[in-house]
Amino acid sequence: MRENDLLQHVYAGNTALPDAVTIPPGDDMGAITFGDRSLLVAVDQVADGVHFDLANTPLAKVGRKAITRNLSDIAAMAAKPTAAVVAACLPRDFGEANATALFNAMRDTAQTYSCPLIGGDTAIWDGKLLLSVTVFAEPWRDAEDQPIAPVERTGAQPGDAIYVTGELGHSFPTGHHLDFEPRIELARELVLASGGATRPTAMIDLSDGIAQDLPRLVEHAELQMRILPLRQGESVDGREPWQHALGDGEDYELLFTAPADAVIPHAFGHDEDESKHVLITRIGTVTDAGGIVVVTPEGESLALDQADAKGWEHTA
Amino acid sequence: MRENDLLQHVYAGNTALPDAVTIPPGDDMGAITFGDRSLLVAVDQVADGVHFDLANTPLAKVGRKAITRNLSDIAAMAAKPTAAVVAACLPRDFGEANATALFNAMRDTAQTYSCPLIGGDTAIWDGKLLLSVTVFAEPWRDAEDQPIAPVERTGAQPGDAIYVTGELGHSFPTGHHLDFEPRIELARELVLASGGATRPTAMIDLSDGIAQDLPRLVEHAELQMRILPLRQGESVDGREPWQHALGDGEDYELLFTAPADAVIPHAFGHDEDESKHVLITRIGTVTDAGGIVVVTPEGESLALDQADAKGWEHTA
Repeated sequence: MRENDLLQHVYAGNTALPDAVTIPPGDDMGAITFGDRSLLVAVDQVADGVHFDLANTPLAKVGRKAITRNLSDIAAMAAKPTAAVVAACLPRDFGEANATALFNAMRDTAQTYSCPLIGGDTAIWDGKLLLSVTVFAEPWRDAEDQPIAPVERTGAQPGDAIYVTGELGHSFPTGHHLDFEPRIELARELVLASGGATRPTAMIDLSDGIAQDLPRLVEHAELQMRILPLRQGESVDGREPWQHALGDGEDYELLFTAPADAVIPHAFGHDEDESKHVLITRIGTVTDAGGIVVVTPEGESLALDQADAKGWEHTA
Repeated sequence: MRENDLLQHVYAGNTALPDAVTIPPGDDMGAITFGDRSLLVAVDQVADGVHFDLANTPLAKVGRKAITRNLSDIAAMAAKPTAAVVAACLPRDFGEANATALFNAMRDTAQTYSCPLIGGDTAIWDGKLLLSVTVFAEPWRDAEDQPIAPVERTGAQPGDAIYVTGELGHSFPTGHHLDFEPRIELARELVLASGGATRPTAMIDLSDGIAQDLPRLVEHAELQMRILPLRQGESVDGREPWQHALGDGEDYELLFTAPADAVIPHAFGHDEDESKHVLITRIGTVTDAGGIVVVTPEGESLALDQADAKGWEHTA
């Protein structure tokens, strides 16, 4: 059973979710209403042997990823980080110096992104290192201090254009999965700029790869592989670069849809050096039938599941 | 390094916690202000081999404990459950039927205590079963709909009486650690009854045992071991029943202080059968010097660390 199926099954058994739950389970974050405010919540975990290899990864990068992976969920809702709590299971031989280095990295990363670590729990056990992080977020506010509704996964319409940020593929071998920048500011710009004219209709962060994450936004689409932004990397299994970009996962870039006439910028960034700006690439269109079709650089149309883009399924 | 020391060290490095953090790290739950509301947050985890033995524990009880252990933190603040999210790491050979049974147990337990499971993350790995649960809570409200401030750990005064709910000791061998009732309603009654006249000055839930948890409330106290409420159980290591009650831990009862003249009831419950009511026992007094002194049933006064009450230190 895949993770999504399992969780959907479980949540479906909630006989009654309270009215305060405004975004139910199934999106990047859930949302609850508190008084006059909306609170967004997500939990995510990084485990030795699944999301990193402790023997070959500096603790500073492990701690960083534990936080940034969750911040990427906040970016996917176009929301503002509030705070984080962490539950850690440390291996018995981990030691005090390592524990301190790890927690310091989590705390400092969280603070860098204005998402302070405000609580936690630690246990020592005979298993491997595991970090579970829960993050809270709230809506950005516009110039009139009105809350900007979070962007959910469900709003895409046929005819919408499909965009992706940054470059994709080869995330594990290049170490990108440890060093990525959660796209919080980029997402903020999308929902706030031009009075909402560039607001995405649906958005998700690419943890499992387009091949698995796009079907969480739309049922039908056509994707152009010749314009997929590729991360430099060497294929070890003979697959084409676009196949890696489509399926490798762990990119933590944003995949979103917007009306075809929305003026979405081609890049985002405030650095004088434009080469440091983040690309925003239009990679396809939402359609109304035919499933998700991948058009290869050679012009061949393939059904998504024929495209040999084996995504990263954490629970496979 | 003990868990408390590690976490205090880490949080001390937060160069600036936002003003919205009204209860900083170190209590049973942290608190953040959202608009005109206060949100309480706690994270806690249960791990195979640490908090339960998967080979000998029904999954329904494992799932129950993952939730109730967190609900006990909510009780310790005298707060009202709002919602929960769970991060699960499942062993590779766990299987779909087990995963479903486990998640159903968590969902149903959460719902029983009006704390619906609203989101989560699962991973499959080569390690043991681990469940990290984050719970949210909010203040109870009085008859005028005014919020009742959560009870923190820091308010005890010399002269206050010390109380404990229920019975203590032998929690692992008797299975109490899987079946306990989080004292949410009892705590609510304490802060709401008589216009706040029975409100505790400080409170904690007993996860590690009085010997470790009382020092988190007070520096100086005198405890009477002859009136400690004992759970039936057999000592396998020659220690006296009061020593087990003082140190075994995993009781998930409430330990609290209140002014000596507060009229604290001797039991709590609405069942016609009074034997089902929960005892509330006055076990000692907060003092202003001398550390924590344990008076044995034989009348001998011992310093706490001479009382041979080895508490449950999760990270020891």
